[in-house]
Parts: sequence; structure tokens; C-alpha cells
Amino acid sequence: MRRVLLGRPILVLRSQSGDIAAMGDVCPHRFASLSRGRFEDDIVECPYHGLRFDLNGVCVYNPHGDGKIPERARVASYPVIERHGAIWIWPGRSEAADETLIPDLSFLDAPSPFQRGDGYLRTKANYQLMSDNIMDLSHSDFVHRTTLGTDGATARAQAKTQLVDDIVTIEWSFDGKGLVMERTTANPPDIHTRIEVTWHVPSVMVIRVESHPVGEETTKRRTTAAHIMTPETDQSTHYFFGIWNKDHVDFARQIFETEDGVMLEDIERNMGGKDLWDLNPIVLSNDGGAVLVRRVLARKIKREQEGMIMDLAS
Amino acid sequence: MRRVLLGRPILVLRSQSGDIAAMGDVCPHRFASLSRGRFEDDIVECPYHGLRFDLNGVCVYNPHGDGKIPERARVASYPVIERHGAIWIWPGRSEAADETLIPDLSFLDAPSPFQRGDGYLRTKANYQLMSDNIMDLSHSDFVHRTTLGTDGATARAQAKTQLVDDIVTIEWSFDGKGLVMERTTANPPDIHTRIEVTWHVPSVMVIRVESHPVGEETTKRRTTAAHIMTPETDQSTHYFFGIWNKDHVDFARQIFETEDGVMLEDIERNMGGKDLWDLNPIVLSNDGGAVLVRRVLARKIKREQEGMIMDLAS
Amino acid sequence: MRRVLLGRPILVLRSQSGDIAAMGDVCPHRFASLSRGRFEDDIVECPYHGLRFDLNGVCVYNPHGDGKIPERARVASYPVIERHGAIWIWPGRSEAADETLIPDLSFLDAPSPFQRGDGYLRTKANYQLMSDNIMDLSHSDFVHRTTLGTDGATARAQAKTQLVDDIVTIEWSFDGKGLVMERTTANPPDIHTRIEVTWHVPSVMVIRVESHPVGEETTKRRTTAAHIMTPETDQSTHYFFGIWNKDHVDFARQIFETEDGVMLEDIERNMGGKDLWDLNPIVLSNDGGAVLVRRVLARKIKREQEGMIMDLAS
Repeated sequence: MRRVLLGRPILVLRSQSGDIAAMGDVCPHRFASLSRGRFEDDIVECPYHGLRFDLNGVCVYNPHGDGKIPERARVASYPVIERHGAIWIWPGRSEAADETLIPDLSFLDAPSPFQRGDGYLRTKANYQLMSDNIMDLSHSDFVHRTTLGTDGATARAQAKTQLVDDIVTIEWSFDGKGLVMERTTANPPDIHTRIEVTWHVPSVMVIRVESHPVGEETTKRRTTAAHIMTPETDQSTHYFFGIWNKDHVDFARQIFETEDGVMLEDIERNMGGKDLWDLNPIVLSNDGGAVLVRRVLARKIKREQEGMIMDLAS
Repeated sequence: MRRVLLGRPILVLRSQSGDIAAMGDVCPHRFASLSRGRFEDDIVECPYHGLRFDLNGVCVYNPHGDGKIPERARVASYPVIERHGAIWIWPGRSEAADETLIPDLSFLDAPSPFQRGDGYLRTKANYQLMSDNIMDLSHSDFVHRTTLGTDGATARAQAKTQLVDDIVTIEWSFDGKGLVMERTTANPPDIHTRIEVTWHVPSVMVIRVESHPVGEETTKRRTTAAHIMTPETDQSTHYFFGIWNKDHVDFARQIFETEDGVMLEDIERNMGGKDLWDLNPIVLSNDGGAVLVRRVLARKIKREQEGMIMDLAS
Repeated sequence: MRRVLLGRPILVLRSQSGDIAAMGDVCPHRFASLSRGRFEDDIVECPYHGLRFDLNGVCVYNPHGDGKIPERARVASYPVIERHGAIWIWPGRSEAADETLIPDLSFLDAPSPFQRGDGYLRTKANYQLMSDNIMDLSHSDFVHRTTLGTDGATARAQAKTQLVDDIVTIEWSFDGKGLVMERTTANPPDIHTRIEVTWHVPSVMVIRVESHPVGEETTKRRTTAAHIMTPETDQSTHYFFGIWNKDHVDFARQIFETEDGVMLEDIERNMGGKDLWDLNPIVLSNDGGAVLVRRVLARKIKREQEGMIMDLAS
């Protein structure tokens, strides 16, 4: 499978032993896409002139003339690991790959009375606009007014943010009448709701929602979901999500496609590819989580780029 | 209604009292389009996080946390006036707005035995190519050969141009056989035709046509129409027209769509977005009106830009 | 007929006497496309304001006012000749036009038991990628595995290249089992195949294929075809081909459209408009012909550009 990540075409393959491999998808000879070629016995064959590469991206066969293999006949190979039902690719220097940096999403692997469900959507918006959206769930009261909205209760709640070890947490805790779409009477009972979102570098988020009728802590309802935003290009994002309950997947996809996605693509067009801060946005109390995330990310990116400059200097 | 003017998205609204308001269509918080939000009781609500703006573009409600409204929470508000059945928006500095600069199109408001008719077309061509087209009606003999053409009589007539107070007038006056599409016999009678086009800064034109059989001044036919070219972007134009006779609107739209519009979009593509003068066109006697208009416009634009520089310097 | 060549719109016309003329397709007055106008009695009329041009691109009639014709009222006129069933246009300085530079494709004109057949395809790839493809027919074993492929025999053959008077020749000569699509038994007879491709500046190629069962030289089969790559833009090419046997045209078109063309457009996208050498490709033994062609072409282009600089300096 070819997948463009960070602007680069990447070939993702599963070997006979079941392992995953990720390598550059462009042949170093004449730049054909390897994903258009044959894949047999853990060997990829370029569809244009038949060079063959192993799962480490190394050319192992040249069908031409005397068959000599040039030293440079290789494509980039990326450290990759499968965990929590997702494929994690390390696009930086291989030596620096560190799987302990993968956030703990083991709740997705846990046995559940419901089945886990997954979804994928491609959105024509920058990945940071996508995480802004999840780090500020007050948008539910407006974007999802008639479904996930709470008649303004989420927006009025003063959310608390916290930063520990590059992990950002934001928490809303409030009494209200519950989700608009779940109200069945004109005067629904008071519901206490607690929402917690944790963000991990570079763009993995977990949303945990708990709610119960006020005074009835024993009848808590819980739902947990992971949201992963992987940049395709500067202006498009692969959006993966995993929910602890398979039955919620279709609803989540529909809501995102028709409401969040439409909004985020409209904003990306209005911003014309510019950086958020260059456009000098006003900042409101509900921006706390999103702003903190952008700050941590900017610091990490700056440090990484300085690291690269030091590498070049040494 | 959202309308992109001069490359900027503008929100145009009608208030409960019937007045028109025009303001920036992009929320200063997270850059969503306000036109996607709700509009009730003269208040616009941002569809993303629910900030509310009045018709002056000022934020009057923040639904988040303690509800404090940041000073910068406002969008641009444009002076606007409704006149002659059109909405006139002033995109420059508000203090400089001057409604006496709106050309007199009161002929459109006058009682008429026919009813006034209006039309709108979007064309993928620069607005100056659109006014060039109207300031040189000799094109009728070629672009509209079988309809508005005159078998070359318009082209042969030496048009007279005049410049008074930044208003350009061009006049054709000639004897011929009338419009090709109106000829009913092989040897039609001689017709005298007088066409006058007046152009007003930046791109409002009025075409007046009078004709009568030679020697029969008492049986004059008259038709008058306004043509307004509003830049959408550098390479596209909103084209509004108003005709003193509703029955002519469909014909005008059809002629423009299938003949002028096709020509102008072809030319825009051939010019590749370049300035006319940079392409070093040859100039013919029929270019008088169009060239004079471009000269006046270039002078006004230069003066405006110098004014902006002086503003910055003072 | 309008045809964009080297990024320029060119108007190609056939005169009453049957000759071909080629001139710029954009009117020097207001940049309308002349190909949208009338063409009668060897005169082209601009569709916008009716200027008329003869087949040398010279304005011969101005219908406006006193009819004076400005000296600059002309479009570029290109030396052109019809030969071997193709139209050859000289886009450089007219004085330098030299019809002896047209490669000898007279095999296409020769009487044949079969009829000659021609084809045309437009491909969104640079013309040099198109000639690379033909100068390295080893790709048949991979791109055309089940049709023109030879089970790797072409790829294994060490092709010989030769450069004489700016003409590049590459020759493959090998024993195998013939084309995969022609094998009718599990153990087909041994076939000797000889393929010769000659390339002429800037991008005309002739492919000659001969084959016969090993030891039976008397039963040779021969096929010859010309392939001409004319740049439309930097990233698109007009591909013309002529085959000595009309019955092969549909097959050739289908193979190119579904196999070569798809590959070349994929590569053009992967290269993102960059020059091949700037992307630092690895070079294999099968690249000999393609690399030699690129070297000759680069030398010719450099010499031409230096000539232009000397022209400017003198």
C-alpha cells in the first residue's frame, strides 16, 4: 500500500512472517512507484525495469546485462512497529527511533463487552487544525448543536489544562442536561459530565467521557476513543480513530464528515496555507488546550531542527 | 450571502429594518466563515465556537467561560449603501467613503413602459478586459456577427472619445442597415445609429443606443443599459447588468455567455495573468475608449497607492 | 488547428493550394486565439475585432476607421514542411531552418503489402522521459510482461550503442523464445531477435525489429515503426507514431495507453517536474542508449543557447 506521509510517498508492506515494513515508494533508478510493481516472497519488484528490493529497501536483484547491483540501489527504510492495531512509522533518523515514545493506547486492546471499532478519514486541512478541534471540545455546542452539543454547558465550563512530560491534558467537568441528542423529555434530569482529553506528541489524542445523573455516581457511563492525526501534506491529514465500541464508528464518521470536516476544510481555505499565529488570531478562554499543544509542538520542532543543524555542523 | 470581492471574502446581510450590512466573512478567532453560521435578530453567530457579531462587525457575545470579550474580537465593517437596485460597498478606508462617487444610474429607477431587468454572470477574466470589451463595441461586428453586428458599419465609424472629470465617454454615430438580426428584407432601409458609452471609476458603464430610419428622426428607438464589473480576483469578475427592458435580459445573458464570455476567458488564458501593456499590444483606432479608461484607472490607482504610502509615513 | 508546442499556441493551416502554414495563434492586438476565427480564401480573421492575416502571419486588412495597418500587426510565422505524412515545424530562427535535418523516414512512404498506420497520444510526461522509454526497450520484460515481454531475454542481452553524427543507435541481438504473447506451446522454438533503435535530434526514433527461428534465416519477420515525441509543455508531450502495418496501430495504442503511458505519467508526478540528473538516479547497464541520447541533446541545447547569447552580443 502506498501512503503519502509528510509529503513523502511511503510503501507499507506486510511480510510473510506477518511483520510490517515501510520504505520509500520511489525506485532510485527511474523513479517509478514501487507500489505499482509485484510483491512476492517478501520481495518488491519495480514495475518499470524489474529491480528487486528486500523489505529493508536494499536492491537484491538486477535483471539487466551482467546483473551487477550498484551500491546506491536502495530506498529509504523506516523503523516501523505494529501496536494497538495501528502501524507506527518513524520518519526520522533510524538510530533515534524509540518505541517507548508511542502513547499507551492499550485500552483499545482490552477485552470489551462491545467490540472495538476503527475509522479513517482524509481531510484537506493541516494536522494542527485537526488537533485544535479535539483539544477544544467546546465546539460541540455549535458545530454539533443538535447531537453532541450540550446547550452551551460545555462552553461555559472552565476547562483545566495541565502539562506533564510533554503530555497535555485538558478536563471539562460540569452539570447540565446531557447531550442534546439524548434528551427524551422536555425537562431532562441533571447530568454530571466529565471529559478528559490527553494529547501526545506529535498528534495522538485520547478522549475519555464519563457521565451520570447528578447524585447517582454508581450508574456511570464511560466512553473512550483515540484520535490520531498523521500529516499527509501541509494542507491535508490522514485522520485515524479507534473507539472502544464498534457501534459508535458509523456515527463518529458521519458527524466528522458532515460537520467537523466541512468546517476544518473551510478554515484551511480561509487561512490559505498560512501559519495560525501569523494570522494573529484572538485567543479565548476555551483555547487553553489547543494553544498549549501548539506551544509544546513548536518547542519540539525547534529542538529537532536545532539538532539537525548540530548534526550538520559536527 | 458570502461574496468574494477584490480577493476578500465579504459577508453581505440584510437587517430586520431592511438595511444592508457588509463585513468580513472570516471570524478573527479561528478563521471559520461566518456565512456558514446562524443569522438571527441582526446577529451573526460563528459556526465554530459561537462568537456573536452585530452588523457593525463587533463581537457582542462570547459563550465561553466567563464570557469576557477581547477588544480585538471584531471583523472589518464596510460602508455600504443600496441605490439603483444595487449594493455599493466601499472597500477602502471608512472615513474616505463618499456616496457622491456612485454614478447616476437613475434611469434604472424611472418608471418605464417596459419593466427593468437585471442579470448576473461570473466570468473568469480580469475586470479590465471586461470594460475593454464594452468600451470598444466595434467587436459586435465580429463577435456578434449574426445578431448585434452591423456588417462592419460600427467598426468603420470613427468613434469620438471624451474625458471630463474622470468620466470617459465614447460615441459612435453612423448610417448603415441596422442590426443584422433585425433585417427582414434583402435590401433593408438605411438606419442612423448613435451609440454612447459612459464609463465611471472604477468600472461602471452605461450604454445608450438610439436609432431611426435615415430622415425619420421622429421614430427614434432607444435602449439603455448599465454594466458593472466588480473584481472577484485578479482573474475573475462579477458582471452585473441592468437593462431598461426586462424582455432583453435573457437575450443579453445568452449573447454574453456564448460569445463575449467565451472570448474574454480565452484571452485571459492566452495572457496568462499578465498586464495588458506588459504584453505590448498593437493599438488600433478602435481602442480609443478602452485605452483612455485604462489610463484614467492607472492614474487613480497610482494616486491611491501614493496616498497609502503617505498615510504610513505620517 | 491549434496545437500547443514548446508551450506556445501555434495555428496550423492548410492553404487552398494544399500547402501547410504554421503561425502564432494569438492576435497581437488583444490576444484572442486566431483559431477561433474564420478561415477563408487563405485568410485568417481574428474573432474579436476582425483583423485579417495572410498565411505568412502578416496583417492584410484592418476593418476599423481608416483601415491603416500598424507595422507591428503580424504574428510569428514558422517554416514548415510536410514529409513522410507528418508536418515538420521549425520553431527557431527562420533563417536557420534546414529541411535536411529531418530524419529519413521514407520507409513509411514505401509501397507495402500492408498499409501504413498512424497514431497519436498525448501524455502528461516530459518528452525526454518518453524517449528514455524507447531507448531502453528492456522495459518490455516488465511493463509489457505478458505481451511484448521476452521473459527477461531482452533485459539480459547486452545492448550495443553507437553515436555517429548526432544519431544514436542502440541494438539488442539475442536468442530466446520470442514474444510472450506469441508463444503457442509450452516449449516454443528458439527465436533469434534483433532490435535496432535509431534516435535523431531532437526526439525522432525508428524501431526496427527482425526475428526468425534459430537456424532459419530465410524466414525473417520484420517490423518498423517511427516514434516522434513533440514537447507540448515541460510536463506533457504529443506522441506521434507511424507503423509499417496498419493492423498494428490499435494494439500499439492500447499497450501505450494502459502500460507505458500510465508508467510515464506516474514517474513525471514522482519527479515533480525536476530534471532527471538533479534527482541523482542510479545508472544501470540498460541505460546506455537513453543516457547517450540525453547527453547529445544536452550538448545541442547548450550550443543553441550559446548561439543565442552570441546573437545578442553581436
